[in-house]
Amino acid sequence: MRLVRYGEAGNEKPGLIDDDHVLRDLSEDVGDIAGEFLGRAQMERIRAIDPKSLAKADPSHRIGSPVGRVGNFIAVGLNYSDHAKETGADIPKEPILFNKAPSCIVGPHDDVIVPRGSDKLDWEVEIAIVIGDEASYVSEADAMDHVAGFCLCHDVSERSFQIERGGQWMKGKSAPTFGPLGPWLVTPETLGDPQAVDLWLDVNGERMQTGSTATMIFGVRTLVSYISQFMRLMPGDVITTGTPPGVGMGMKPPVFLKPGDIVTLGGTHLGEQRQTIRAATS
Amino acid sequence: MRLVRYGEAGNEKPGLIDDDHVLRDLSEDVGDIAGEFLGRAQMERIRAIDPKSLAKADPSHRIGSPVGRVGNFIAVGLNYSDHAKETGADIPKEPILFNKAPSCIVGPHDDVIVPRGSDKLDWEVEIAIVIGDEASYVSEADAMDHVAGFCLCHDVSERSFQIERGGQWMKGKSAPTFGPLGPWLVTPETLGDPQAVDLWLDVNGERMQTGSTATMIFGVRTLVSYISQFMRLMPGDVITTGTPPGVGMGMKPPVFLKPGDIVTLGGTHLGEQRQTIRAATS
Repeated sequence: MRLVRYGEAGNEKPGLIDDDHVLRDLSEDVGDIAGEFLGRAQMERIRAIDPKSLAKADPSHRIGSPVGRVGNFIAVGLNYSDHAKETGADIPKEPILFNKAPSCIVGPHDDVIVPRGSDKLDWEVEIAIVIGDEASYVSEADAMDHVAGFCLCHDVSERSFQIERGGQWMKGKSAPTFGPLGPWLVTPETLGDPQAVDLWLDVNGERMQTGSTATMIFGVRTLVSYISQFMRLMPGDVITTGTPPGVGMGMKPPVFLKPGDIVTLGGTHLGEQRQTIRAATS
Repeated sequence: MRLVRYGEAGNEKPGLIDDDHVLRDLSEDVGDIAGEFLGRAQMERIRAIDPKSLAKADPSHRIGSPVGRVGNFIAVGLNYSDHAKETGADIPKEPILFNKAPSCIVGPHDDVIVPRGSDKLDWEVEIAIVIGDEASYVSEADAMDHVAGFCLCHDVSERSFQIERGGQWMKGKSAPTFGPLGPWLVTPETLGDPQAVDLWLDVNGERMQTGSTATMIFGVRTLVSYISQFMRLMPGDVITTGTPPGVGMGMKPPVFLKPGDIVTLGGTHLGEQRQTIRAATS
């Protein structure tokens, strides 16, 4: 099952993409794809609906983030061994966690705005986990019971803010538009093995990142279980799980994004995103 | 004006404490003290109500966090010069930011639960800023236009999770019950100068922390302006601003909290909190 939120920013309606890639309206059945709706009971209710019974929606609608009202946007750092290597960091012994401000979340094809003072804007293709039911001290074996699904995430990063402005990474991970999610939330049964997802990212049509979640240091079950030892994960929390090799910072010399660049990215069963990089207007 | 949320956890009603310290019911006037309600327009509407015209509420009600649905719970590290010194850290050149999971927020007198695996549970009395209107790239001069008010915050901290578990502090700042807020949100005109607030914290009746926001490295206006350069602050976001000297980690030898301990804390115009430390039950 692939769930979407479509329509203008801040006013998205729930929908799904059926097996024939047709956008269908779920707003008769669901208030929003957010919070408690993402729990198992509600998701089972949606699974029971015949998609063909739902009204078709205009496919030209803007697509928003497939998760509304994200409460906590958690990110994992250096979670692919090759990416850790390209940044010059050691392989972490435990997952490195940081936060992105939930206010950075946008739709998959919205513009990415260069923040004021930025000179090292970088890209990171990732697969994100969407929490469905509360998770506190869950085992790896039970972790997937708390996962509503997955979505593609562009973990847009400003390296000078992240690294050169004093401790803790959130400063370089949180600017408005730094969190494109979607196009859809894919449920676990449709995704299949989350450790067999190919990921790629192009800048202006040139391949920059190629990877597979098979080379994650800490897999999806491990991450959900691990994070749940430190905090209660809530319905609608999003965990983006780290990026494979090929970021701009790791190139020799480093390459960063500039206004006018086009970033496209995608992953197996996750769909594709396309963003134009734009200068701030004010 | 002092705003509160009272009643059982997850089901709090809005109220206010009048000048005679009487709890009054605001639920006819306000859905919840959360999100858009905290903006200037709505707050002006509440200021125009005569508190004596509101029904009295039973003063024995539990008091919850004075802010509901906190979207982003941001914390500032090492923001008092003496506290930076006691931890052995240099005075930061720019504010150090990290996150607490919003799911850690509880009422001011709720129990604090020792998380599983904890052996270094520590206290930190702080004043927190509550954002009222969106703030992006705001100047220090305009910063207070975006602040709904302030509240007392106990930034409960697990030092081994924070420091010994690999990068980034959020791991030690986010466990359930690690964010007691309240008892009330005090509006700026009632608080007066936010850089002239005395703070104190006792453990089992013994004074551990004494400080004043006069010795903050980065004051309230600076913090709101600074953080708004890196992310869009949203209504209901909470920024807890760092702790004065006297934390357990800084003692020689270090002292940490254990089940049965009683922590009391308070600040000028901020009211008082009282928590019992309890072992996890499961």
